[in-house]
Amino acid sequence: MLLERVRASVDPELRRAVESLPGPMRCVARYHFGWQDAHGTPAVGNGKAIRPALVLAAVAALGGPQPPAVPAAAAVELIHNFTLLHDDVMDRDITRRHRPTAWTVFGVADAILAGDALQALAQRVLAEDPHPASSAAAARLAACVVELCAGQQVDMALEKRGPHEVALDEVLAMAEAKTGALLGCACAVGGLYAGAGEAHVEALDAFGREAGLAFQLIDDVIGIWGDPGRTGKPAGADLMARKKSLPVVAALTSGTPAADELAELYGLPYEEGDLERTVLAVERAGGRDWAQLQAADRMARAMYELSRAVPDPEAAGGLLALAEFVTRRSD
Amino acid sequence: MLLERVRASVDPELRRAVESLPGPMRCVARYHFGWQDAHGTPAVGNGKAIRPALVLAAVAALGGPQPPAVPAAAAVELIHNFTLLHDDVMDRDITRRHRPTAWTVFGVADAILAGDALQALAQRVLAEDPHPASSAAAARLAACVVELCAGQQVDMALEKRGPHEVALDEVLAMAEAKTGALLGCACAVGGLYAGAGEAHVEALDAFGREAGLAFQLIDDVIGIWGDPGRTGKPAGADLMARKKSLPVVAALTSGTPAADELAELYGLPYEEGDLERTVLAVERAGGRDWAQLQAADRMARAMYELSRAVPDPEAAGGLLALAEFVTRRSD
Repeated sequence: MLLERVRASVDPELRRAVESLPGPMRCVARYHFGWQDAHGTPAVGNGKAIRPALVLAAVAALGGPQPPAVPAAAAVELIHNFTLLHDDVMDRDITRRHRPTAWTVFGVADAILAGDALQALAQRVLAEDPHPASSAAAARLAACVVELCAGQQVDMALEKRGPHEVALDEVLAMAEAKTGALLGCACAVGGLYAGAGEAHVEALDAFGREAGLAFQLIDDVIGIWGDPGRTGKPAGADLMARKKSLPVVAALTSGTPAADELAELYGLPYEEGDLERTVLAVERAGGRDWAQLQAADRMARAMYELSRAVPDPEAAGGLLALAEFVTRRSD
Repeated sequence: MLLERVRASVDPELRRAVESLPGPMRCVARYHFGWQDAHGTPAVGNGKAIRPALVLAAVAALGGPQPPAVPAAAAVELIHNFTLLHDDVMDRDITRRHRPTAWTVFGVADAILAGDALQALAQRVLAEDPHPASSAAAARLAACVVELCAGQQVDMALEKRGPHEVALDEVLAMAEAKTGALLGCACAVGGLYAGAGEAHVEALDAFGREAGLAFQLIDDVIGIWGDPGRTGKPAGADLMARKKSLPVVAALTSGTPAADELAELYGLPYEEGDLERTVLAVERAGGRDWAQLQAADRMARAMYELSRAVPDPEAAGGLLALAEFVTRRSD
C-alpha cells in the first residue's frame, strides 16, 4: 500500500534525525513516534505518514525523482510531530493515537523541549540537504510553522468564548491554518523538489489546503457520529468537552430553534446523559449536513487546484488517492 | 558604543521578522523584546544584543563585510529569545530583565507559541538569505538549538536531585550547553559569513563557548555576592530557590565541613534569615574562589582559541572587547 511504501522510505531518515538527539529528548521523541513504549521497550511505530506521502506524491505527479525528496518528506513529518507534542501540552490532551500523550508520561517540560528539538531537526535536515530546492522548502516550512502556531492560538482563544461569540468564518480560517496549511506545504515542498514553477507550487499548496479542510470537516463529523475505533477517541468526546468544532459552530450559527438549545447545552458543563440531546441538537440545527456539503465542496476545489497543478490525470493519481484517503480517516 | 551600533543595525531586521507574525504572537514577541508594554504602549527595547554583536565582530575579525551578516545576526538573536520564552515557562520564572515574564502576562500557551514562532522566524530569515554561508549557518544554528534544549533538560533534572547527588562536571557541561553553545554558535556563524575555513570556524566556536562559561561563572558569583541592580534579580535569589549554580555545586562537592553545612541548608526549603548562613557556607567551602579561578581559566582558554581563530590581535579587538564585556555583566 502507498503509505507503507512511504513509511519504508522515510522512516530511516526520520529515525536517523531522532537518534541524533541527546538521551532524554530522544526517549520522548521515540515514545511519541511510537517506536518505544514508556519503559523504552521497542514497539512498532504509529502515525500514518500522510504528509511525507503528499511530498513524495507531489514530486511524482510533476515527474520528478522521489528519492532526493526523502529528507524533505522527513522534515515535514518532524514539523508535524513537533506541533503535536506542543499542542497536546497546551490542550492538556491525554490521549494521542490510542496512547497516553508524551507530556503525561515525561512531564510538560520534557515534552516542550522534545518538540523544540524536533522543529530544529526538521530545519537541520533541510539545511544539510544539498538539493537546489532545499532553501526554498525550508523557508516555506518555517512560514508554515508560524501559520500552524497562529491556528493553535486562535483555536484556544475560540474555546474560551461563549457559544454565541464564534463566527463560522473564524473556525474555518482556524481549521485551514491548523490542518490545511501543513498539508498544503507538504504538497508545495514536493513541487519545489520536482523543480515546478511558482504557479504550480501555489496550486499544489491550495490543493493540500482544500483537501486538509475537507479532512477536518469529515474528522469533526466522525468525532460526533462516527466510529471511535477509527478516531482513537470516544464518540462525542468533543461535544462533552464543549469543543467548538466545525459542525457545532455551523449549528450554533444556523439561526434555528435547535441552535438555541445547543447554545444552552454548550453554556453549561457536560452532564451525564446530555450527550444524546447535544448530538441531536447539532443534527437538527443542520450541523451535520453543512459539514458534509462543505467537505464535498472543499474536495471539489481541491480537485480543481490539482487539475491546475498537474494537468495529466494519470500523473495526479497518487495525490488524488491520498486526498481520498485522508478524507475518509483521521490522524 | 559597540553594542548600540549593533542594535541599530540588527534591530530593523529583528523587527521586520517579528512584525510579520500574526496578531497575538506579535504582541507577545513585542512585549518580550521590550518594544511594548503589557498594554501595547510602545517602549524602548531591552536585551543587550550580545549574540548579534558576536556574529558581527567575528565577521569583522576575519576581514569580512558586516552588512551581509546582519540577517544571520538577527537569526541568532531570535533563537536566543525563543529559548528565553520557553525556559521562563518551564522554570516558572516570573521576572526577566526587570519585567514580568511573557507567560505571566499572556499565559503559558501564548508564550510557548510565540517561542515556537521565533524559532521558525530565525530559520526563515536564514533560508531566505541568499548569502552562500546561509545554509551552513542554518544547520549550525539548528544543531545549537538541540544543544540548548539538552542543556535546559539537564538543568531541570539536576534541580530535582539532592544536594549530594550532583557532580561538578555535570553542572559545567550543562552550563556549556545552556550558555556557551549559543555564544559559540554566534561566533562560528560570523566565521562562516566571513568565508573562514573549518579550523577557524571551530576555534571561533570554542572561543565563544569558553567565554560563555566564564560569563556564567561570573553571573553565578554576582547572583550570590553581587549587585542586584546589575543582575535584575534580588541578591541571593538563587540560594533562596536552592538553585544548584556553579559556585554552590563547587562548594557542595568540596569535601569541607562547610560543604556539609551547605548540604543541610539546601536539603530544606529556604527560611527567613538563613540566607546569610548559606552565603557564608558557600564561601567557606571555597565556592566563590573556585568560580573566580575557573572563570579566569575559561577566559584564558577563550583567549587561546581566539588567537588560533584570529592571529592578528588588532582584528580580534572587537571579539576581545565583547568577551570582556560579557564576563562583567549579565543578560
